[in-house]
Amino acid sequence: MRLKCLYRIFYRKTWKSSECNRIEQEVYMHESNSRLTEIARRLRQLILACTTEAGSGHPTSSLSAVELMAALMFGADTKGSPFFRFDPDTPNYPNNDRLIFSKGHASPLFYALWAMAGKLSERELLTYRKMNSPLEGHPTRRFAYTEAATGSLGQGLGVGLGMALNAKYLDKLPYRTFVLLGDSEMSEGAQWEAVQIAARYGLGGLIGIMDVNRLGQCGETMFGHDIEAHARRIEAFGWRTVLVEDGHDFKQVLTGLEQALVVGDGPVMLIARTLKGKGVALAEDKNGWHGKPLSQEQAQEALEQLGEATSGITASLTAPENLVPEKIHVGKLSEPAYEPGEQVASREAYGRALSRLGAVHPEMVVLDAEVSNSTKAELFKKEFPERFFEMFVAEQNMVSTALGLSIRGKLVFVSSFAAFLVRAYDQVRMARYSDANLKFCGSHAGVSIGEDGPSQMGLEDIAFFRTILDCVVLYPSDAVSTERLVEAAAAHHGMVYLRTTRGKTTLLYDVNERFPLGGCKILREDSADRATLVAAGITVHEALAAAEILAKQGTSVRVM
Amino acid sequence: MRLKCLYRIFYRKTWKSSECNRIEQEVYMHESNSRLTEIARRLRQLILACTTEAGSGHPTSSLSAVELMAALMFGADTKGSPFFRFDPDTPNYPNNDRLIFSKGHASPLFYALWAMAGKLSERELLTYRKMNSPLEGHPTRRFAYTEAATGSLGQGLGVGLGMALNAKYLDKLPYRTFVLLGDSEMSEGAQWEAVQIAARYGLGGLIGIMDVNRLGQCGETMFGHDIEAHARRIEAFGWRTVLVEDGHDFKQVLTGLEQALVVGDGPVMLIARTLKGKGVALAEDKNGWHGKPLSQEQAQEALEQLGEATSGITASLTAPENLVPEKIHVGKLSEPAYEPGEQVASREAYGRALSRLGAVHPEMVVLDAEVSNSTKAELFKKEFPERFFEMFVAEQNMVSTALGLSIRGKLVFVSSFAAFLVRAYDQVRMARYSDANLKFCGSHAGVSIGEDGPSQMGLEDIAFFRTILDCVVLYPSDAVSTERLVEAAAAHHGMVYLRTTRGKTTLLYDVNERFPLGGCKILREDSADRATLVAAGITVHEALAAAEILAKQGTSVRVM
Repeated sequence: MRLKCLYRIFYRKTWKSSECNRIEQEVYMHESNSRLTEIARRLRQLILACTTEAGSGHPTSSLSAVELMAALMFGADTKGSPFFRFDPDTPNYPNNDRLIFSKGHASPLFYALWAMAGKLSERELLTYRKMNSPLEGHPTRRFAYTEAATGSLGQGLGVGLGMALNAKYLDKLPYRTFVLLGDSEMSEGAQWEAVQIAARYGLGGLIGIMDVNRLGQCGETMFGHDIEAHARRIEAFGWRTVLVEDGHDFKQVLTGLEQALVVGDGPVMLIARTLKGKGVALAEDKNGWHGKPLSQEQAQEALEQLGEATSGITASLTAPENLVPEKIHVGKLSEPAYEPGEQVASREAYGRALSRLGAVHPEMVVLDAEVSNSTKAELFKKEFPERFFEMFVAEQNMVSTALGLSIRGKLVFVSSFAAFLVRAYDQVRMARYSDANLKFCGSHAGVSIGEDGPSQMGLEDIAFFRTILDCVVLYPSDAVSTERLVEAAAAHHGMVYLRTTRGKTTLLYDVNERFPLGGCKILREDSADRATLVAAGITVHEALAAAEILAKQGTSVRVM
Repeated sequence: MRLKCLYRIFYRKTWKSSECNRIEQEVYMHESNSRLTEIARRLRQLILACTTEAGSGHPTSSLSAVELMAALMFGADTKGSPFFRFDPDTPNYPNNDRLIFSKGHASPLFYALWAMAGKLSERELLTYRKMNSPLEGHPTRRFAYTEAATGSLGQGLGVGLGMALNAKYLDKLPYRTFVLLGDSEMSEGAQWEAVQIAARYGLGGLIGIMDVNRLGQCGETMFGHDIEAHARRIEAFGWRTVLVEDGHDFKQVLTGLEQALVVGDGPVMLIARTLKGKGVALAEDKNGWHGKPLSQEQAQEALEQLGEATSGITASLTAPENLVPEKIHVGKLSEPAYEPGEQVASREAYGRALSRLGAVHPEMVVLDAEVSNSTKAELFKKEFPERFFEMFVAEQNMVSTALGLSIRGKLVFVSSFAAFLVRAYDQVRMARYSDANLKFCGSHAGVSIGEDGPSQMGLEDIAFFRTILDCVVLYPSDAVSTERLVEAAAAHHGMVYLRTTRGKTTLLYDVNERFPLGGCKILREDSADRATLVAAGITVHEALAAAEILAKQGTSVRVM
């Protein structure tokens, strides 16, 4: 900056303004690059220190993205505006830009960046991968700056999509969502689901940064260093791309980021050619170094090669403008309306409950995978089209998007056929590690759907959701219990799965009956009962019919 | 053909040969088109008849693909060579072309085609969707001409990929694999996994036929009738595409198929613009007709509009050339070699067992999702590189590809981290409905992997595979039991899941110990036992340690 001032004082008046600006800019860039180079050196030191101390982790996958992430978090455009706007004291601040490490194994870099930003001490960083440290091997929400737990590849972009959807359509805030992607993980189909849906919704606030370091876990990726091949695929899906030939050259990276951040009406992917293990000679661009830390001796040698970093170097973040998220006015919760003995499918009751709840929960959002006329999520869509998002036939991305919305404070209901929700098992599992507040509804559960056959029957869904820690699994037997349990699901913070039936069933309960989570009901009892039939959902009706037959045969049984 | 002969007799000698050929060809095409038009009319009648009789099903999604499938199965190129070569009396004949309905809900068309080919009577066709009929709502292997069960969208291409991989690299036969795809299902990420892997392996024998009927279940698809948008995406992934502007015009469809079948070194996608419900005025190109049969009255009206079909029209298929699949010479099964008390990880034993078995099972194939150095499938790869296929980080397609290989008679072992295999839940579930002979191995199971964190831990995998009907779930506790159980898995026809551990464990068994499927072992017992510790896999070692501690405290416990 000193140099810049000198130029200004001595030459400004005699030179043409444009020439002066150009030189000022160059000087600024030069200074900025030197500062970033120092930051990069320090980041590399921290990455090596924490992984060698832990004796495990992924230093090489972290080293390839050092310049990309340093430039993003601590760099600025040619006008001096920082790329990344974040209030480091308030990670959950609605105006903060979001940064997701989809390649979660680059966690050493992730933590090192937050150490540079002053939010972790070196001592804390060295607890990496140790018992009780929030700095887990792959980021989880135990660390306050983790937007979403990652580590199962190919999920971060979908989560980012949810956050960008929130920015554009719900909170209506100008924050940007950045997602660091690995080249290996671009082979996951879920990525392409996210890529297509982000284009569909014109998410100009979503910026992917692809770290094309060529090497996967056990060999070269499908496209190696061919960044054009990556670009062709992504452009064909409707994204703008920006290519960076050398992802370790700050000048190129800064220019690339500036181009990527030109606000447009669609998402942008910055694709950078990098070297895995960059800066550590014995591992740089070499196969066989995935997920391997350096030994103490190797790390010592590598640190000597890197050279001394300016002591005590830190970098600061700039807070974004304080804008207020869009508010929606709240109405009054209406009561479910049913006639005694009415025949209503529980999926219909699910849709009705969503519509009732939508009026009192302005933060409520509903996603469906192109079957909303079957799941009956369409009843919410008709009432609140601005809070319903069609996710098309792409269940995995639907769940990741829901997670992104949920992390941004939305109450998200996600529906599809129970049979097809299982497709997003890995995404549901990972959502749990992000402590998500997500509600799932699987329709057409069980064999009662009949002639459509096993491919459409949700038979595994209860077991599936029961494996998810703390997930509440609900299987209502009639329309009233469904409506009340959807209310209970909305009120419960955490993950809930509700299973609905395709066919109509007779009402079993009065609308004033209460349904606390975790309870059960005795529907038929007598002191002469000789057995208890335990049933749930549609089988309750079968159990009642069986009890009736048994009663006629002189055997009294209880139905729970 | 009569007309063609007349031309030949009267004009052949006076006209130029090329002109003569052109006219002959036109006449031939004209006759072929008339015949196909009649076949198409009959197919439409059958589609309406069976769905209206069933009172459910997807007539409109079937009607859009009538010309595409009639031309494929019963049409020929301009030289008169049939596109589809199939011996209808031997569905499993290795030289048959394969046809998979990835859009399984178009089953009425699928069955109608086989009725036309003389393999179903009209009476049998009318059992569609009825109890005990092999003609299920979505095709399963209960019907002999179903290549693979479909109905969960976005899986057929991956299955076809497996069959095409078999044709090119294993059986080395020239059969082609055709996959009928819906436009809606192109939003499933698994499709793009298959698209990229098919390009990677240069599968010229794989031909996708995309029925772009514009409408999904509850609205327009992402790209509507924009077939160029579909083509851009697929070409960017390395496929050749052939566009058909009107998928109901036989001339265009036949030309398109001829172009698609020019043998190249990569897969081809024929993309045709069609109308959902084509030929039935009240439903044609209209939203709201997905999965809805016509009423008796509507069907009557539609049949009148279609007009009479030539009575008793049938179509025959041409059998392919009788070529012999490639044979691999068989060696001798070696014995596992371990020293008593040795420390070996069960994942290592899995890899060793694969290598031993590969020598005696020429039909054995191993797939892995870019983690073969972790799962140790790499030991097989080193021994038999021609029977190992890298599936990259794309688990869903890996399972569908394995299914395709398995249906073509291969013994397929599929491995990844247990945590990431769950990503292919829906594909595993569907493989079961194809009666697949598939062996899965999930490595890095349980919390014992430690510092990598929950994203990498297989915690749900036992529950997952236990929901799959008849699936055998194995969790060996040491290297010997692992090797023997891999042998047992290979010998067992059906689905098997084997769970392995990352860390080394001590050998518990002698190499001559036997491990029948379904058994268990008592590792420590005494008449003074006061309790039994039941454990599996790595927890057996913990249980033995606990028993040791308890014994020192004077309490004897059994370990099972």
